[in-house]
Amino acid sequence: MEREDLLLIPGPTMIPPEVRAALAAPPIGHRSPQFADMIAEITKGLKKVFQTEGDAFVLTSSGTGGMEASLVNTLSPGDKVLVATTGVFGDRWVQMSEAFGLEVEKVRFEPGQAADPEKVESILKKSPGTKAVLLTQNETSTGITNPIQALAEVARRHGAAVIVDATSGLAAIDLKTDAWGLDVVVGGSQKAFMLPPGLAFLSVSERAWEMHRSAKLPRFYWDFSKMKASLEKGQTPFTPNVCLFSGLRASLRRILEEGLENVFRRHAKVAALARKRVKALGLELFADEAHASNTVTALKAPAGVDVSEMNRFIQDRYGILLAGGQGDLKGKIFRIAHLGCISERDIFAVSEALENYLAGNRG
Amino acid sequence: MEREDLLLIPGPTMIPPEVRAALAAPPIGHRSPQFADMIAEITKGLKKVFQTEGDAFVLTSSGTGGMEASLVNTLSPGDKVLVATTGVFGDRWVQMSEAFGLEVEKVRFEPGQAADPEKVESILKKSPGTKAVLLTQNETSTGITNPIQALAEVARRHGAAVIVDATSGLAAIDLKTDAWGLDVVVGGSQKAFMLPPGLAFLSVSERAWEMHRSAKLPRFYWDFSKMKASLEKGQTPFTPNVCLFSGLRASLRRILEEGLENVFRRHAKVAALARKRVKALGLELFADEAHASNTVTALKAPAGVDVSEMNRFIQDRYGILLAGGQGDLKGKIFRIAHLGCISERDIFAVSEALENYLAGNRG
Repeated sequence: MEREDLLLIPGPTMIPPEVRAALAAPPIGHRSPQFADMIAEITKGLKKVFQTEGDAFVLTSSGTGGMEASLVNTLSPGDKVLVATTGVFGDRWVQMSEAFGLEVEKVRFEPGQAADPEKVESILKKSPGTKAVLLTQNETSTGITNPIQALAEVARRHGAAVIVDATSGLAAIDLKTDAWGLDVVVGGSQKAFMLPPGLAFLSVSERAWEMHRSAKLPRFYWDFSKMKASLEKGQTPFTPNVCLFSGLRASLRRILEEGLENVFRRHAKVAALARKRVKALGLELFADEAHASNTVTALKAPAGVDVSEMNRFIQDRYGILLAGGQGDLKGKIFRIAHLGCISERDIFAVSEALENYLAGNRG
Repeated sequence: MEREDLLLIPGPTMIPPEVRAALAAPPIGHRSPQFADMIAEITKGLKKVFQTEGDAFVLTSSGTGGMEASLVNTLSPGDKVLVATTGVFGDRWVQMSEAFGLEVEKVRFEPGQAADPEKVESILKKSPGTKAVLLTQNETSTGITNPIQALAEVARRHGAAVIVDATSGLAAIDLKTDAWGLDVVVGGSQKAFMLPPGLAFLSVSERAWEMHRSAKLPRFYWDFSKMKASLEKGQTPFTPNVCLFSGLRASLRRILEEGLENVFRRHAKVAALARKRVKALGLELFADEAHASNTVTALKAPAGVDVSEMNRFIQDRYGILLAGGQGDLKGKIFRIAHLGCISERDIFAVSEALENYLAGNRG
C-alpha cells in the first residue's frame, strides 16, 4: 500500500503540499476584492513564466480550449495556416484548424524527430500569404522538444504569426515569448504548473491583438477582448474556477521562488538522469536524442514486452504510473514523464522498478 | 473571526465536507480504469438529475461554455432563434447568438417578471421558421424562475427546439428534461451541485442529435460527437478537471441520497422562509412573487441604504456574503442566494444580521 501513486505521466502531475492546501481552501467570490488581488498576482507571475511584457490570460478549460482560443481570436475562415506536426498534439492543430474552416497546409515529421526549420521555410516559400504557423513546443506523444526559436524566426521572416502550444513544456523548458517573437502561447495547469487539469493559460502579443481586430472566426467564451476588459476590473468574463486560481497563485509562488532558470535546470538534470538510467537498462530512446524532451522520455517497447501489461504491473506493484503510446504508437512505446515537482529520487525509484520488471522479478 | 464565510451568493456556493474531501484527493489519470468507473457513475447520476434518458456530458469550462456548446452543436449561421430574456443571463443568450451569426429575435420581459408563454407564442406565430427558443430556467440577476414547461410547450408547438440555461436552478428547482421536451439543458458545478466553478453539464435529446448532424457552426472543443465517442471509452475528448469530477461524484451521491424531490422541497422551504423573514424586516421583494426563485431572493435597496456598503459590512462583521445587483440593477437591488447545501439556520443567521444593520446597529 503506497502513500499515493507517483504520477510519472505527462499530466496530471504531482501536486506539492502548499498548492494542495491552496486548492482545498474554501472558494471565494469571483467578484470580490480578494479575487481581484489574486488575479493581479497571477497575471504578473504568468507574464514572468511566459517571459513576456504582453498580455496573459487564464481560461477555465483544458489546454485544448486554449488552443481553440488562439485560433478563433486571430484568424478568419479560409486563412492559410501551416502546421509543423511531430505527433498527436501537432495533429490536433491540424484537426482543429480544419474544423474552423482554415486552409491547412501541414508538414509531418517522422515520429521521434523534431520539426526542421529549413523544411518549414521551404514550404513557406512556396506558400506565400500564410497567416500563421502553428507549433508544438514539446510533443509529449513522442518525447521531443521542437526548436521553437528557430521555427519562429523562419515564420516571422515570411510574415506569418507564430502560435505555440506549450502545454507540456511551459515552466519546465525555456520559452522566451517576447525575445523569440511568439504571438500566442498556450499553457495548461496540469503539467509543470503542478495543478489538477482545468485551466489554460494564454500569452497575447501586440501583433496577435492586431490580428484579433480583423479576425472573423466567431467567438464568445474564448474572446480575448472580453478577457482583457474583465481583467482590468480584476475579474474574468465568466465564472472562473476560483479554487484552481488559488492553487495557481501558490504554484506560481513556488516556481518563482525556485527561479525560472533553476526550474529549467532541474528539469534538464532529472531528464538527463532518466535517459542515462534507461539506457543503462538496455532500453532504447524513441526520440532523436538531440531533441529529447526534458519533460517526458519516450522509450521503444523492448522485444517481447507488452508495455500496457508492464505499466499495469508497475502501477500495481510499485505505485508508479507510466504512460503508454498514443494513437499509432500504442503498444510500440512507453513513456516516463518527469515534469512539475519531480526530482532525482523519483527517477531512482522508477529505474529500479523497471529493472526488476525487465529482469523478470514480477512477484 | 468566523470559521469561514457563509456564501449566500448565487455561486460559488458552500461545499459540504465529503465533497471537499473528494476534491482534495490526489488527481487520478484521466485514461485510467478508475476514471472510466467514475465517469460512468457520474453520467448515470447526471441523467437522474436532468430527468432524462438522453445523453449527459460534463465539460471542463464555466456554465457559459456549456451555453456556447449548446448553440454551436445544433445551429448553423443565419438560423433564426428566439430568446425570451428576463435579465442578465437571458441577455447573455442574445449576445452569444449574435456573436455566432444567428438571426436573433428577442423578447425582453420587465426586470423581476417571468417570461410569458402567450407573449412568446405570439412572436413565434409571426416568425415562422424559428429553429430554437433559448430560455433561462432561473434568472439569478432578478430572482425569478421562468415557467419552462409552458414555454417549452409553446416552442415545440411551433416546431422550435428548446435550449435551456439551467445553470442556477438545476438540482434545486424541478426541471423535467424528457417530460417537458427540452433538447439541450445546461448546468454548472458551482450552484446547486455544491462544487467550485469549473464544470458545465449538458443534456442532449434525440432531436438535438438530429440538429447536430446538419449544424454548420464550427466546433472542436465543444463537439458533442467527440464527447459521445470518448464517453463510450470511459473518457473525455480532452484532459478533464479530474479533481472536480471526483467532487462531482460525491455531490451527486449526496443529492441522490437526499432524493431529488427532497432537494427541491428543501430549496422551496428555505426560500419561503427567506421571503417571509425579509418581508417581516420591511424589505420589498424585487421579483414578482408568483415567480420568485427558490434559489435566490432579490430585494429592492431600502431607501437611504447603500447596498454595496451594506453587503461589505455584513461580510466584515458577520462573515456572510450577499450579492449586489448586476448591470442596470447595480445599487438598486441586493440578493440573498439560498442554493446548494443550505438550510433554515443560514436564513436565521442572515435575517438577524440584516435586521441589525437596518436598525442601525453597525458597531
